[in-house]
Amino acid sequence: MQPTILAYIAGFLDGDGSIFFQLVKRKGYVYGYQIRSSVAFYQKTENKQILEWLKSTLMVGYIRHRKTGMSDYTIVEPYEVKRILKLLQPYVRLKGEQVRLSFEILERLQRVDSADDFLRVCCLVDRFKELNYSKKRIITSKEVEQFLEQHGFLAPVETDPVRERVTRK
Amino acid sequence: MQPTILAYIAGFLDGDGSIFFQLVKRKGYVYGYQIRSSVAFYQKTENKQILEWLKSTLMVGYIRHRKTGMSDYTIVEPYEVKRILKLLQPYVRLKGEQVRLSFEILERLQRVDSADDFLRVCCLVDRFKELNYSKKRIITSKEVEQFLEQHGFLAPVETDPVRERVTRK
Repeated sequence: MQPTILAYIAGFLDGDGSIFFQLVKRKGYVYGYQIRSSVAFYQKTENKQILEWLKSTLMVGYIRHRKTGMSDYTIVEPYEVKRILKLLQPYVRLKGEQVRLSFEILERLQRVDSADDFLRVCCLVDRFKELNYSKKRIITSKEVEQFLEQHGFLAPVETDPVRERVTRK
Repeated sequence: MQPTILAYIAGFLDGDGSIFFQLVKRKGYVYGYQIRSSVAFYQKTENKQILEWLKSTLMVGYIRHRKTGMSDYTIVEPYEVKRILKLLQPYVRLKGEQVRLSFEILERLQRVDSADDFLRVCCLVDRFKELNYSKKRIITSKEVEQFLEQHGFLAPVETDPVRERVTRK
């Protein structure tokens, strides 16, 4: 892809787009929650052609038109999120820290082999939300931790949980 | 300037920026109004560094921090607006029509030599606001026209004014 196309998309993402991670409760998931990654671009529905162009350029994701007159183009597949962020990384100026942390979350997520591991990735998702100054933190790693304890994946914590160094019984 | 820098700025402008024209009432102006051009970029004040980078890159304009937690970086000098839009034009995808109409307004404004001429440029400003889907059209060409008539610059219109072909007594 042409460097100026990638630089344009990086500018559009910095200006009006968003990179974010969510903890989503899911039946059938081993640890009870999905860590969902998203790269999203927003625009008034009147200007939906720019979202259609983005989709045809990046060749993944889906467009939704809201009743509010706003539309968004969103990519959620972790593999695609990683591929697109790799393409945009050299040109991003505002969301550089989000891009770096996205790679860390996506890479650690692939190597999760215990509830403890999983919880550590959830803590990175919390940190990501702080980067985004998100006000509505619906599900935090605290809730996942309680779930994992209740379901016997984690022993109850001995002292107050320190995110980066959890000590269990 | 590097093409990827210009493409990035064009993407940022398309995503979250704005090009607009305003009719501003001014004492001491021959035709009573100034036609003010603006190119503006918006961002939360927490992210003001991107606006500072834009300013240091484009080397004109000013940054304002609002009490709402938002900041903007705005360029208003017509010569600079034209120069910057010329630089960004090859990369802009969403505001292409605004860029084209900006050149038309700025070029016709330089050649104004009658109230009639001036009013025609004001009509282009109205058209520009429609492009931007602006809801608050504080001053339209209609008000300028009434002012010009009241001050003897224009003869009263014979029939209903048709914007592109005003017939006067």
